[in-house]
Amino acid sequence: MDSSTAAAMVRADGYELHALAIAYGQRQGHELACATKLADALGAASFRIVTVDLGALGGSALTDEIDVPKDRDHASIGAGIPVTYVPARNTVFLAVALAAAEACGAEALVIGVNALDYSGYPDCRPEFIEAFERVAALGTKAGVEGTPIRVLTPLIAMSKAEIAAKGHELGVPFEHTLSCYDPIEQGGAWLPCGRCDACALRAKGFAEAGLMDPALGGQA
Amino acid sequence: MDSSTAAAMVRADGYELHALAIAYGQRQGHELACATKLADALGAASFRIVTVDLGALGGSALTDEIDVPKDRDHASIGAGIPVTYVPARNTVFLAVALAAAEACGAEALVIGVNALDYSGYPDCRPEFIEAFERVAALGTKAGVEGTPIRVLTPLIAMSKAEIAAKGHELGVPFEHTLSCYDPIEQGGAWLPCGRCDACALRAKGFAEAGLMDPALGGQA
Repeated sequence: MDSSTAAAMVRADGYELHALAIAYGQRQGHELACATKLADALGAASFRIVTVDLGALGGSALTDEIDVPKDRDHASIGAGIPVTYVPARNTVFLAVALAAAEACGAEALVIGVNALDYSGYPDCRPEFIEAFERVAALGTKAGVEGTPIRVLTPLIAMSKAEIAAKGHELGVPFEHTLSCYDPIEQGGAWLPCGRCDACALRAKGFAEAGLMDPALGGQA
Repeated sequence: MDSSTAAAMVRADGYELHALAIAYGQRQGHELACATKLADALGAASFRIVTVDLGALGGSALTDEIDVPKDRDHASIGAGIPVTYVPARNTVFLAVALAAAEACGAEALVIGVNALDYSGYPDCRPEFIEAFERVAALGTKAGVEGTPIRVLTPLIAMSKAEIAAKGHELGVPFEHTLSCYDPIEQGGAWLPCGRCDACALRAKGFAEAGLMDPALGGQA
């Protein structure tokens, strides 16, 4: 939901999109099938999947056999770093995206991080993004000899309701987006659990925006 | 040569070593076989190979079919960013190492970058390392809730001659190290080309240290 809305927003600003999905050993391999459909729907000029096996390193409920927390109230979500935190995940994502951007001559990376209605991950905060931009400026040929590659975070200060409304306005096919940390396979379709932090934040966002979530019918 | 000497130096300082090799699509897959032997020789407590297919992104003589420059004089080496630069390579290496370090509770990363007798890569400079340390401090649970993971660069201000002498003193098995950008396979052994920038810097280092390079006999 966040990545695809962020992508749609920069595309609406006139950027050509080169989509990148990272296969990092997440339990929901279905995310990668969604990413393929979204890249196509958003008119991406290219789409790549790069494998980085963070699952082999362990340490997270998203890649290990640790239980995903369920039924937490909104006050608890974001009040600390949850067990769904994947060690250095966005640092790895941005590093691989930086390599991809420099190899294809892209001006900027875009990432759907959000520091308002979020789960409390340190690598979603603006100060982290600024620190990464400095790495991009100092650690690449593009940064030293040309124009540093920027990191665009169009959602950073938006609420989930604003993200749902903006994505809806831009025609993002939310039926192909998956936010759930622990989806349930049912007859070949994937249903969100409806009880993890990501489901709770998403439901609140759609409700406050006065929209139906098209993914609630299950995904083929 | 640099990675293994850096590892031996921090081990001599009392650190327990957890070795990490990145399979990034480099043409010299032989590097990974060397890494396995070196981790064992250096008494590493663990050794992992993580695949990140930067080769699929293109843009470098180390992963693509671009020719590696040969027979350049020492004044030319390091005077600009060469075609052997791999886009954002050390950013990706450090990001994956940061994830590994956080997952296993390590205090620090160690990387054998060197800004003196080096090839002119932007991601070997101290200002890049400092920027990455800030990313590690702001973008991880370890940095926010505990002690930030440091990046140790014991070779950063050493000459190649000093590195050769230090590695020799610490018993680093240089016969299992491969610096060459374009090694030649000969009867199952790998021989350095002797003509690329990395071979030139290495030869100068061993010569100035008054040492023989044990890798010149070829590697099984």
